[in-house]
Amino acid sequence: MKDFNAYANYFEQHIKTQRFDHQPNELYEPIQYTISLSGKRIRPVLTLMACGLFDGNLESALPQAIAIELFHNFTLIHDDIMDNAPIRRGKKTVYKKWNTNIAILSGDTLFALAYQYVQLADKDTLPEVLSVFNKTAIEVCEGQQYDLNYEAESNVTVEQYIEMIRLKTAVLFGASLKIGSLIGGASIEDAKNLYEFGLNIGIGFQLKDDLLDTFGDENLFGKILGGDIISNKKTFLYLKALEKASEQEKTDLRLHYSSANNSEDKVEKVKAIFTRLNINETAITEIDKYFKKGIHYLDMVNASEENKENLREVARKMINREK
Amino acid sequence: MKDFNAYANYFEQHIKTQRFDHQPNELYEPIQYTISLSGKRIRPVLTLMACGLFDGNLESALPQAIAIELFHNFTLIHDDIMDNAPIRRGKKTVYKKWNTNIAILSGDTLFALAYQYVQLADKDTLPEVLSVFNKTAIEVCEGQQYDLNYEAESNVTVEQYIEMIRLKTAVLFGASLKIGSLIGGASIEDAKNLYEFGLNIGIGFQLKDDLLDTFGDENLFGKILGGDIISNKKTFLYLKALEKASEQEKTDLRLHYSSANNSEDKVEKVKAIFTRLNINETAITEIDKYFKKGIHYLDMVNASEENKENLREVARKMINREK
Repeated sequence: MKDFNAYANYFEQHIKTQRFDHQPNELYEPIQYTISLSGKRIRPVLTLMACGLFDGNLESALPQAIAIELFHNFTLIHDDIMDNAPIRRGKKTVYKKWNTNIAILSGDTLFALAYQYVQLADKDTLPEVLSVFNKTAIEVCEGQQYDLNYEAESNVTVEQYIEMIRLKTAVLFGASLKIGSLIGGASIEDAKNLYEFGLNIGIGFQLKDDLLDTFGDENLFGKILGGDIISNKKTFLYLKALEKASEQEKTDLRLHYSSANNSEDKVEKVKAIFTRLNINETAITEIDKYFKKGIHYLDMVNASEENKENLREVARKMINREK
Repeated sequence: MKDFNAYANYFEQHIKTQRFDHQPNELYEPIQYTISLSGKRIRPVLTLMACGLFDGNLESALPQAIAIELFHNFTLIHDDIMDNAPIRRGKKTVYKKWNTNIAILSGDTLFALAYQYVQLADKDTLPEVLSVFNKTAIEVCEGQQYDLNYEAESNVTVEQYIEMIRLKTAVLFGASLKIGSLIGGASIEDAKNLYEFGLNIGIGFQLKDDLLDTFGDENLFGKILGGDIISNKKTFLYLKALEKASEQEKTDLRLHYSSANNSEDKVEKVKAIFTRLNINETAITEIDKYFKKGIHYLDMVNASEENKENLREVARKMINREK
């Protein structure tokens, strides 16, 4: 079994050969555009690696890896409409480049196209693969709805936030691994443990995102820091800070996070409160907790130590990344 | 095998028992709202009838009938956003009652929920059922995109219009029948013929819609006549009129159909041109052509004459309806 980069190259070569240039153009151009912007491709590579973990046939996992990637891209196209996000991966988002109707409809089409790849699983595996895929799709929608809800709610708890990112982000990592393992011939128990591995490192991955957005190295991160603070996003850092803050700090934090307040030094002031409350350390501890929990599930999987080490390495990279 | 109403009652009883009241409320309330508004339920009933045609077990076709109905409702929720439609089935549309984000996301969830019902097909039938479902979903999206495109295009032909309604509307009738028949144990050939039956009566159904919108009996139709003319919709009537019109009539028609012109007597004036060109007769002839073509495919299906007569009756009602 090879490492992440080898699988990523394999995936990149094959996704390129998939044709999405059907008619009408207005529908398929945004799809090609979105797919070609690539991104990290972590999820489909996890599908391939989970198949490789059991020395399964990679070719048979490829359609499922593509399905996962298409589904992920569908959620991005629709989320960008809902979040009014003009830029993604350094390029205009679909609704900005074209319009909202085209973004809705090309997203819908991408979702259906994902199912055309799911459908390629062999007859014996298809029911279980489809079941995991459906459950995950519904949960991701639920997570996005909670995310939208929490924008307007003032009393979100850390637990609610973790549950939101579990649904919106982490379950897809779990599903990517579980589906790949099922194709690779894993037992139900191993598939379940890989799902839990993915779920936990997925939560860690998102918490790391929150951390980097405020405390990252701007040169490495590639984005301006403080974006979450500027947009008043109730991240783990913010919610944990509210938990630990004095009454005065709570008032200050809430004041900074009111939409009326967008002063230039807002980011610095919020960051200063976070730092005073040692929130970056709290976040690092929390990320490590999920990382260790994930690894614990991976350890239990019945596969060769060498193969498992390749997946551990991916988890480490997901958690220790600087961008 | 029973008639349409018996199947419709059966479906209505069972769709009512399905629970969509999960969390978060913001996501599932619009889904419950949409499903409970019912509508004609023609598509799921066709699924059940196609299963009954082969004396198949109705219970096993029920999840597929529900899948078809959920999918249809998903497309309505998203189409209403794209078409700025405030009212559907006498009630506010989802994006009007809630908002666009909720309509996008509850639509997406409904699409995924539809697949959870597809997934209940038995292992041997699932691959083919899923394949029909996926292909249809993609085609319906393509049809909607053509519909959006044609709003802005001035040179749409009758052929392009028929192809658009084939994709947007008719393929789902075909798929409803094909999927039901596969569950009922039909041969590939019979399933294919039923698909063609549904496709052709589906086109006829939509052409009848166009006809009723202009030439229906307002008391029976239940909607104000001329809605398509008011919104400059390039229906079969309009496109066929352009084909048959003199240069002067063409100019008049195009003038009436320019958005600047929304005078009170617009509907009457356009209707007068249609009448002069005998467009209602042309439409009736065209509808009859698709109806006969559909029936021809149904005739070829290897099933009892009595069972086929029940489906013929549905086709007649779809085509001869006044509302």
